[in-house]
Amino acid sequence: MTSGLQFDSAGRLRHLLTIEGLSRQTILEILDTAESFISVGEREIKKIPLLRGKTVVNLFFEASTRTRTTFEIAAKRLSADVINLNVSASSANKGETLLDTIRNLEAMHTDLFVIRHSESGAAHLTAQHVPAHVNIINAGDGRHAHPTQGLLDVFTIRRHKGSFAKLKVAIVGDILHSRVARSQIHALSTLGVAELRVVAPKTLLPTAVEKLGVQVYTRMEAGLEGADVIMMLRLQRERMQGALIPSEQEYFNLYGLTPAKLALAAKDAIVMHPGPMNRGLEIDSAVADGPQSVILPQVTYGIGVRMAVMALIMGGSAEPAGGRRQA
Amino acid sequence: MTSGLQFDSAGRLRHLLTIEGLSRQTILEILDTAESFISVGEREIKKIPLLRGKTVVNLFFEASTRTRTTFEIAAKRLSADVINLNVSASSANKGETLLDTIRNLEAMHTDLFVIRHSESGAAHLTAQHVPAHVNIINAGDGRHAHPTQGLLDVFTIRRHKGSFAKLKVAIVGDILHSRVARSQIHALSTLGVAELRVVAPKTLLPTAVEKLGVQVYTRMEAGLEGADVIMMLRLQRERMQGALIPSEQEYFNLYGLTPAKLALAAKDAIVMHPGPMNRGLEIDSAVADGPQSVILPQVTYGIGVRMAVMALIMGGSAEPAGGRRQA
Amino acid sequence: MTSGLQFDSAGRLRHLLTIEGLSRQTILEILDTAESFISVGEREIKKIPLLRGKTVVNLFFEASTRTRTTFEIAAKRLSADVINLNVSASSANKGETLLDTIRNLEAMHTDLFVIRHSESGAAHLTAQHVPAHVNIINAGDGRHAHPTQGLLDVFTIRRHKGSFAKLKVAIVGDILHSRVARSQIHALSTLGVAELRVVAPKTLLPTAVEKLGVQVYTRMEAGLEGADVIMMLRLQRERMQGALIPSEQEYFNLYGLTPAKLALAAKDAIVMHPGPMNRGLEIDSAVADGPQSVILPQVTYGIGVRMAVMALIMGGSAEPAGGRRQA
Repeated sequence: MTSGLQFDSAGRLRHLLTIEGLSRQTILEILDTAESFISVGEREIKKIPLLRGKTVVNLFFEASTRTRTTFEIAAKRLSADVINLNVSASSANKGETLLDTIRNLEAMHTDLFVIRHSESGAAHLTAQHVPAHVNIINAGDGRHAHPTQGLLDVFTIRRHKGSFAKLKVAIVGDILHSRVARSQIHALSTLGVAELRVVAPKTLLPTAVEKLGVQVYTRMEAGLEGADVIMMLRLQRERMQGALIPSEQEYFNLYGLTPAKLALAAKDAIVMHPGPMNRGLEIDSAVADGPQSVILPQVTYGIGVRMAVMALIMGGSAEPAGGRRQA
Repeated sequence: MTSGLQFDSAGRLRHLLTIEGLSRQTILEILDTAESFISVGEREIKKIPLLRGKTVVNLFFEASTRTRTTFEIAAKRLSADVINLNVSASSANKGETLLDTIRNLEAMHTDLFVIRHSESGAAHLTAQHVPAHVNIINAGDGRHAHPTQGLLDVFTIRRHKGSFAKLKVAIVGDILHSRVARSQIHALSTLGVAELRVVAPKTLLPTAVEKLGVQVYTRMEAGLEGADVIMMLRLQRERMQGALIPSEQEYFNLYGLTPAKLALAAKDAIVMHPGPMNRGLEIDSAVADGPQSVILPQVTYGIGVRMAVMALIMGGSAEPAGGRRQA
Repeated sequence: MTSGLQFDSAGRLRHLLTIEGLSRQTILEILDTAESFISVGEREIKKIPLLRGKTVVNLFFEASTRTRTTFEIAAKRLSADVINLNVSASSANKGETLLDTIRNLEAMHTDLFVIRHSESGAAHLTAQHVPAHVNIINAGDGRHAHPTQGLLDVFTIRRHKGSFAKLKVAIVGDILHSRVARSQIHALSTLGVAELRVVAPKTLLPTAVEKLGVQVYTRMEAGLEGADVIMMLRLQRERMQGALIPSEQEYFNLYGLTPAKLALAAKDAIVMHPGPMNRGLEIDSAVADGPQSVILPQVTYGIGVRMAVMALIMGGSAEPAGGRRQA
């Protein structure tokens, strides 16, 4: 899947399909824009008229109330109209259905598709077929990518750690099935961190994961040693085929983030999780709700980051100052 | 469940969880505010900008299209953005799920949660955990309370009967399973009526129901004698465990409100029902659609009462005059 | 089902239930109004304040994401608030449920019901019971009618063919189960075309279909001969009881629109389909995506036609000029 598809002929970001191929400068532009949108959520009137009269379609072929809600809130705060479509992906010829659905929606003069699909490449396939005025955000495709999650994660790190260059970052858990991990790795590699580690049992590591430029740890204690940022992943129970983990209890013992394991990291390490959490499986509640957790701030930043991506790709000025005039 | 949770340190209503513990003055303030909102529904442009830029989340763990719709309409008439979430309550650890869901939504800077849940106390539990800027309305929790229904019911009585002091009021039907009945009893006790009766077969009466300050009747004819207000309840078929009623036909014969039974009440008695009705079970269509029925006006008033509660707890001026300037 | 119900005492269109009984002048007024709305979809800000403060209820007793979406987009572009209700039609007494649901919604001071129901006559039944200020659009009732589809189809023909008088039009496929076909036949008969043909196997033709003023063909090649407009129907697999077609492959061989069969029609014939298409069953992808297809323009026009119908029956000026002032 080529990332070139994301840019128009002038090199402007037109779709957000994957973080792969985004320059450091583009990522930083998104993060800076997000900073300016975060404050909108703190205003008395949390609405700016940037996308007034635009139609945003949340097109979810895979159910996800949480993610859909964040995009719906982000779009409404930008004053767009939002259409929610939950489409069963059970029909025989899925590709056909996807493209016919997209063509119909774009014939209705809708402006932005936020697409989640269980098949890797669904958002790319769509992007290959839409006309110039339609924008696409990939809200998760199969095991491939979940770029707005990756962006809000690096936004969170910058907010809490300032700069990236000296950080040791550990991504822990079900790397194999995780589109979130792929997006995180691409974002952090591009921004440049001192050390980027992945920590998982062998059965949950993709083959040749080292080629992504990460250091691989199968013992969690070693992987957490001195880490400044710990990014936990959700154990994708529903995607596990066969016995990839011994038992949930044993998984928790070996790879669950407990206060004892957290103590091995840097004293001021932050703990992240994309949610929803399996408490007591990949993370102990004492850590999830503890002082080093930035899990809820991640959710808050997620709204601002999604507003920023929508504003940038839809070509409105990323400057929310216009918002001071209320529509 | 303490009702003190509903007020902030200055004694201002912050959440609406239950009518229990609300003062007569607070209830009357809500009813008076509702009066001023009723007219909004009759305008050409049924919208006032009181909650513009606020995000209202309808968080329904128990399906209810009707109730959700009334809150959605009320919020949109106040110009709020509305997010509808239907959450399956089937997950293993429900309390955990509820609180994690709430924490995530409040991290998105949402302002008001309208919560319906099959477990008594769900709205209270939530209220104990939200920060100061978040408000909660209980839209029905288990068998416990459904306060906006109770408020719209007393609003209806005041509209049609003027004052409460001399009224004989009969609540008829499945008292045992009814959160509506509990809310009605608390509202009418606080406002003060001449006689408050409950009418039901023994199997559908809570133990020690007399302690709520009501007179108990198991014969419907005696319970309706001279009543000014008859408040029918929906027979909660879906909540009945075991054979609490002999047969639907026999229930209708004994406790269904027919024209003949209605004739025992005061000549100008009004008939109420919270809906949806089981016609031919707890109420005869001749009564439901007859001249003494105020069942549809209840629905109309329900929008105004919900707008009033939202306006009051979210701290906007309860004075909808601001609405005359259209946004 | 009388069509008189659609007009108020002054002869103004109040509901759109069926095309049957609409005058040529009324149909042309709707098409002309739609022309003026089409441009709204092409503006930077696709929104006009014509129905601001009105509440439109999409009341779907039969699931249809596509049709619901077109009405939702049309209503939002007119600045109305939209409430989506998907009601299971599985309850015992459907008529009762429908009317109680309608009465409750109208008590909430909603303004327009867009109704889809699996039973023929559902929208008519509703129209008989609503007060003067409520308007109704039939979005498909059983096998009876789907008038906005019929209107957007004749809009499409006028856009691409200019005038109706000299056209040969062939409607092809499952005429028996198709409410779309009925609405198309009424619209085209009223507007007047040179020849109106229906093409189907005998098992998919209604009895006495000739009485509708159409010419009947059971051989597709003969039916397409020299046709200027080919209107394909969706094969309603889900409505077929018993073996009305031999096999899907044989159906495609006999009645599927292929490039070879299309070559029998006029050289500049246009191909239409109401969607969603069964590709490879009633239509070949080479035709569906080919140069003579106007299937996607139909979708675009559908938004403008639905906006026009809403604007006309809700009594706002059909003149969207007011929209130039943005709310």
